[in-house]
Amino acid sequence: MRTIDWNDESKSVVMIDQTLLPVELNVIECKNLASLCEAIRSLRVRGAPALAAAGGFGMALAVTLSSANSMEKLLNDLKVAASTLIATRPTAVNLAWAVNRVLKATEDSYDLESIKDIVIFEAIRIADEDVKINKAIGKYGQKLLDDGDTVMTHCNAGRLACVDWGTALGVIRSAVEKGKEISVIACETRPLNQGGRITTWELMQDNIPVKLITDSMSGHVMRQGMVDKMIVGADRITQDVVFNKIGTYTHSIVAKEHEIPFYVAAPVSTFDPNGWEDTVTIEQRDADELRYIGDVQIAPKNVDVYNPAFDATPMENITALITEKGIFEPPVLIDEILM
Amino acid sequence: MRTIDWNDESKSVVMIDQTLLPVELNVIECKNLASLCEAIRSLRVRGAPALAAAGGFGMALAVTLSSANSMEKLLNDLKVAASTLIATRPTAVNLAWAVNRVLKATEDSYDLESIKDIVIFEAIRIADEDVKINKAIGKYGQKLLDDGDTVMTHCNAGRLACVDWGTALGVIRSAVEKGKEISVIACETRPLNQGGRITTWELMQDNIPVKLITDSMSGHVMRQGMVDKMIVGADRITQDVVFNKIGTYTHSIVAKEHEIPFYVAAPVSTFDPNGWEDTVTIEQRDADELRYIGDVQIAPKNVDVYNPAFDATPMENITALITEKGIFEPPVLIDEILM
Repeated sequence: MRTIDWNDESKSVVMIDQTLLPVELNVIECKNLASLCEAIRSLRVRGAPALAAAGGFGMALAVTLSSANSMEKLLNDLKVAASTLIATRPTAVNLAWAVNRVLKATEDSYDLESIKDIVIFEAIRIADEDVKINKAIGKYGQKLLDDGDTVMTHCNAGRLACVDWGTALGVIRSAVEKGKEISVIACETRPLNQGGRITTWELMQDNIPVKLITDSMSGHVMRQGMVDKMIVGADRITQDVVFNKIGTYTHSIVAKEHEIPFYVAAPVSTFDPNGWEDTVTIEQRDADELRYIGDVQIAPKNVDVYNPAFDATPMENITALITEKGIFEPPVLIDEILM
Repeated sequence: MRTIDWNDESKSVVMIDQTLLPVELNVIECKNLASLCEAIRSLRVRGAPALAAAGGFGMALAVTLSSANSMEKLLNDLKVAASTLIATRPTAVNLAWAVNRVLKATEDSYDLESIKDIVIFEAIRIADEDVKINKAIGKYGQKLLDDGDTVMTHCNAGRLACVDWGTALGVIRSAVEKGKEISVIACETRPLNQGGRITTWELMQDNIPVKLITDSMSGHVMRQGMVDKMIVGADRITQDVVFNKIGTYTHSIVAKEHEIPFYVAAPVSTFDPNGWEDTVTIEQRDADELRYIGDVQIAPKNVDVYNPAFDATPMENITALITEKGIFEPPVLIDEILM
């Protein structure tokens, strides 16, 4: 199954609950916007491209459940839903991008029924396109990987971050599909351990060799000559930096020190041509993420915690951006990539 | 109380069980070598200087419990105990140093009773000296800290790593004692979370402001200008590198990138003038440390894991070594420091 999908029979959003992996594979069904927003906020669905699909399907939920009896009221319901969805993960530009794309698609419609069809159609199209886009990212990116390479990655930019295939892990899958032997080193990605829980799980499902390390080991394994390349995903790419899961910036410095190519694989929907590092506010997450794992206390209950969700990696630390439009080596104008 | 001490009445080693912190402050009593070795292996006592005290007290246990009725047999018992103790943490040079120091102290004794006294006396002296040494490290090191500094640290080189006061945290304590306002950023230090569990706990006990971050955030917080200096301890210092808790090397690269001074605070007993990076084998720890926290599963049960206990930071990444003999800026010959 896909990571997230629209069930047209039950008019609901179905998804793999990623907070339960790797212990349990559980599929949940969101029948209203509140439960979908909860799923987004709790990271049951996460990863930039999957969040785009979630945004689109959220609009499909909103249009399905709206009791509006006029165009004006329905469009207003959709706008309220759009704001609610975008507010769940304010740094995730793909979520806002998809929501706004669905809103825009309604502009040409003149009656209530056609709006409903258009919204659902557009949401499904966003999900289908994501799979095509990831395959294109993989097609370009796999050229950068050599037979026998060990590739380090951080967090999960895999099929579970997308609708299917994956961005960073999609590049690895495409290389494997081409017959290249690729091994992966997965950084566990504190505090939510997406690397340890999800990246390892999905690679093991595909029989791609994977070794788990703590985030702090990246320097050591590179010094030992265990890493040929590093590939990560992205949550937002501005003119000057790549916003991605906290820890990415540290890995980029360490990769530069060891002259290891550092690649970012992301669809162009991640690019924000009007954004700069200082125009983006990085969300702070709950302090308890560093005080507990499940029920296990791992720090004093009342310890002060700093817990940003993302960090910013400057373009000069990035060897190339891998997109569905091809490979781009910084310095590059985002506008040129988007043209 | 001290982190680890000799109880002369019950002829046992008493220590704070650090694996239970910060949830519970529990003092355990080791009445034989097996229970002490278990405590060392399980990291109930950890940190280079505390391990030296543990080594000395281990010899005191051995001499107390020996039923040997001849000098030859007693010395043989002590040699067996020495090997057993050293084998519990082969990379920890301080442990071996203290054990061998106690062994050497027996060379001048001629009868069974005097050997027993000498071994116990020498073990206690090692512990007492450690406190004096840490105060001296603090006295020199505090000069490097300015009023208002925020100091980042990794793992726990605090009083719980020593008999008392601490090395890296001892420098901070000495600066605070001088009236300087110092804040600390503690890296949680995966996989065993000594930073999150122990460093935060002991600093909060002393009312020194401390903020907890994940290890991977070090680059981000430095880029945000939140860090003035970094101080860590050391497990073994050879001519070319500092062996310390895994993650230290990554932090050193990130500090260099941001031109942040990177200090190593350690007693001269940590120095190994005959050692080089390639003469030391870094111990691999149990893979389950990355698969579970307590009973909580955080990775697939059978995922391949790489789990080195230490890494090696080259001298060129180190701004200064802070010892009880003063401050030394690399490049420096270890032999000169030891003179």
